[in-house]
Amino acid sequence: MNALTKAVKDGDLILLYFSKREKYITKVKSGEAFYTYKTVVNFDDIIGLPYGTKVRLKSGVEVMLSRPSLEDIVYTLFIRKTQVLYPKDIGLIIIKSGIGPGSRVVEAGSGSGFLTAYLAHFVRPNGHVYSYEVRPEFLEIAKRNISILGLSDFITFKLQDITKGIDEDEVDAVILDMSSPWNVIKYARNKLRHGGSFISFVPTVNQMEKVVLELRHHSFIEIEAFEVMVRNYKVAMGETRPVSVGMPHTGYIISAHRP
Amino acid sequence: MNALTKAVKDGDLILLYFSKREKYITKVKSGEAFYTYKTVVNFDDIIGLPYGTKVRLKSGVEVMLSRPSLEDIVYTLFIRKTQVLYPKDIGLIIIKSGIGPGSRVVEAGSGSGFLTAYLAHFVRPNGHVYSYEVRPEFLEIAKRNISILGLSDFITFKLQDITKGIDEDEVDAVILDMSSPWNVIKYARNKLRHGGSFISFVPTVNQMEKVVLELRHHSFIEIEAFEVMVRNYKVAMGETRPVSVGMPHTGYIISAHRP
Amino acid sequence: MNALTKAVKDGDLILLYFSKREKYITKVKSGEAFYTYKTVVNFDDIIGLPYGTKVRLKSGVEVMLSRPSLEDIVYTLFIRKTQVLYPKDIGLIIIKSGIGPGSRVVEAGSGSGFLTAYLAHFVRPNGHVYSYEVRPEFLEIAKRNISILGLSDFITFKLQDITKGIDEDEVDAVILDMSSPWNVIKYARNKLRHGGSFISFVPTVNQMEKVVLELRHHSFIEIEAFEVMVRNYKVAMGETRPVSVGMPHTGYIISAHRP
Amino acid sequence: MNALTKAVKDGDLILLYFSKREKYITKVKSGEAFYTYKTVVNFDDIIGLPYGTKVRLKSGVEVMLSRPSLEDIVYTLFIRKTQVLYPKDIGLIIIKSGIGPGSRVVEAGSGSGFLTAYLAHFVRPNGHVYSYEVRPEFLEIAKRNISILGLSDFITFKLQDITKGIDEDEVDAVILDMSSPWNVIKYARNKLRHGGSFISFVPTVNQMEKVVLELRHHSFIEIEAFEVMVRNYKVAMGETRPVSVGMPHTGYIISAHRP
Repeated sequence: MNALTKAVKDGDLILLYFSKREKYITKVKSGEAFYTYKTVVNFDDIIGLPYGTKVRLKSGVEVMLSRPSLEDIVYTLFIRKTQVLYPKDIGLIIIKSGIGPGSRVVEAGSGSGFLTAYLAHFVRPNGHVYSYEVRPEFLEIAKRNISILGLSDFITFKLQDITKGIDEDEVDAVILDMSSPWNVIKYARNKLRHGGSFISFVPTVNQMEKVVLELRHHSFIEIEAFEVMVRNYKVAMGETRPVSVGMPHTGYIISAHRP
Repeated sequence: MNALTKAVKDGDLILLYFSKREKYITKVKSGEAFYTYKTVVNFDDIIGLPYGTKVRLKSGVEVMLSRPSLEDIVYTLFIRKTQVLYPKDIGLIIIKSGIGPGSRVVEAGSGSGFLTAYLAHFVRPNGHVYSYEVRPEFLEIAKRNISILGLSDFITFKLQDITKGIDEDEVDAVILDMSSPWNVIKYARNKLRHGGSFISFVPTVNQMEKVVLELRHHSFIEIEAFEVMVRNYKVAMGETRPVSVGMPHTGYIISAHRP
Repeated sequence: MNALTKAVKDGDLILLYFSKREKYITKVKSGEAFYTYKTVVNFDDIIGLPYGTKVRLKSGVEVMLSRPSLEDIVYTLFIRKTQVLYPKDIGLIIIKSGIGPGSRVVEAGSGSGFLTAYLAHFVRPNGHVYSYEVRPEFLEIAKRNISILGLSDFITFKLQDITKGIDEDEVDAVILDMSSPWNVIKYARNKLRHGGSFISFVPTVNQMEKVVLELRHHSFIEIEAFEVMVRNYKVAMGETRPVSVGMPHTGYIISAHRP
Repeated sequence: MNALTKAVKDGDLILLYFSKREKYITKVKSGEAFYTYKTVVNFDDIIGLPYGTKVRLKSGVEVMLSRPSLEDIVYTLFIRKTQVLYPKDIGLIIIKSGIGPGSRVVEAGSGSGFLTAYLAHFVRPNGHVYSYEVRPEFLEIAKRNISILGLSDFITFKLQDITKGIDEDEVDAVILDMSSPWNVIKYARNKLRHGGSFISFVPTVNQMEKVVLELRHHSFIEIEAFEVMVRNYKVAMGETRPVSVGMPHTGYIISAHRP
């Protein structure tokens, strides 16, 4: 993700863009090849070519050599073993948490590491993410996913139950995507720096209610509970309309600050 | 925003938290005082006290010394001379743009500097924001607002019409909150790095349509058009419901990548 | 509402339409006049004129003689002493209840009579609405409101607590806009005809949950819980967008059928 | 739909309710049977039984004899050859149109007759629906669908292009679900009674804009443009949440009155 080169090199993550509907993200490996159902891309043929080049393969098929975005990588290459967070929720979680480069963040659970990836991305180069997870199989998935991005240095994965306590002190944010976040609030109260933020993501209204009531009980301030809906549009000249499938529900976000 | 101290010191931005409904953000100035309609806070009385302290003032009123978040500062202290972007839209703009620490971003127009502040916050410490604005009076407001945050080093403000061209090369993202974004797409096409992202925020559906059609004309890929709605909840034990006022409309976001 | 005449006559409800923003609904009374802040309309001057006529008053001001719709009358002339139901919710309540001309409907509480008016409107000419209300002051308001429409013959108002029982048998629908609808479900179970429908409108998610669970307990079928949101648009050539104020929350609707 | 009997009789539409997920609507025919994949229902065995009876079939399977609602019949038994309108939109169209028992309504196009069915249902017993359709194959479907409900007497189907003119005079409402509703506005202007309502349902924002501008051009009043969204909830004790699939988009509704 870091040193962006202008030309394709061994080990890069590359977006092979055939068309709007046919595109693949893969790792460039010298001496190997990538197979689609209708053509083959020999990596040695593209190493050294500048990104943005449109290449005509031996099969006659054309492919654009493109650089994948963080979003492309996370939502295409990451293995999912759990429900994952989506950009619509991650975006406002990041803003409400107040984090940025240099922040110290506690997260639980790691899940498949989707949110972890974004947290690590934004706290670079001098911040850190402490990611708690009680299920070892998920922790392995999260670690494997994060390694694709080269962001592992910014994360400490902990096979540990956050409802038993938080080890880190003076953290800037505690961000929870887990089923009983109310059990963590008393620890967050003590381990957050003054003004630090608490964020919880939950799928049901009952959990939302419970989290808010527990935050009030612990005197958190600026408590907000909300949900984010994103509506996608299908644009065509004179025929623009929302996509038919509509807005899916994912969950509710609760944000608050330690007083 | 950067070196967070544990104790209040001269020059800090402080959140004087009297109650949920009465709170003020101000700059601590030795020798001076802050007046509310019912009490006075002499800064010399609080300098040196740790953040999180609850102070009983001479008037008998209690105040919590708290540290404001980036959001508190931007949405409370920034002067507004234009329509401004809100967290719900800024969050997904940041995610869709793919930017982060180290990114080079072109933005137009600067407006009142609300989005500029968030962009600068996230590209720190080694990225940069180039912010174009044609109206000198807004540029001054944006500069003044940004100076409150101490983020001015990460931004170059340019009194320049972006529909005439973009000076910077190989930028990671071009982000537009202006009335005729379609006039900038041909420049963005050339000045974005390969895989770089284009983002436009517009209030009307007709503008959304026009931006998408122009992006297609210039062969941008992964074009998406959407809007973000946030629904706030009023939580009470057994009486939880969305707030009555509902979800306001702000605008549509279009995102795309240079192929 | 019934015998629509082509010309204005004494006793008609009339819509005096001055402009989009200035319009009044009033009852035509021979010998009297209607005063606005800038002109006066003598009813005797307009009696006998066809609806649709644009009249120039002595003051020089022009007014269109128009016929108000049911919605105009209910939402303009009805006195509100309670929260009232809005068209967005009434529309789907009517559809989900399955009622129509000839239906027998039990309603509680009468409130200000807004829903009652629509129920009576749709069950005409051979159906009937039984409207329960425990607060005498609201019952009087509801009666007064309904009398404006001339629909009183289709409604029996009952100063009675529906949580103590329902008098009517074999009703087509029981429709509740009250705070403890779960207390009525056991009666609705017995007094609805087979296939008859139960509808409840509640403001909070907790009430929605409680109603659904109680309906399941009493073996109701085809239980649905939903909310209706309406988004209004501000249309202008090339500048069309949702209105800024957004979509207000009113409440949740639960519908079910007696098996 | 009309004379509701307490016992099942030959020719009735019946809802055979096996479980929440397995239910069928069919016509009771003496001497015949209804087959599901696991049992058979001989109609002669159930004729004469009261609705609401739970019958144990020879196969040992139990079935509840229930009466289908109008919605059950329309959305289960009607053949669909076109996009159809859904309850969420029909509900508010009915309310905004101001129609009710006795109204004279012009509709176009007939489509598959879903909206036609509801219009006929609500204008009974002394109103009438004039339904225009230019495609003979759809008109046949609509007629066939409506005949199931026994509402054919309240509808005149016309194989006629409404963009060429409206035959009826002094109609209470003109309701359009067709692709170029703006071509009908000039006729609606003349054929609606004073105060009569115009309603148009369109899938795209561009059509919505065009309809509103044309209505303004013809001096219609009280013009509103909106869309209806319905959000369904999955209710469980302590685990209540919106359904994941979210709110689908169907179209925009424009309503207005003839001045």
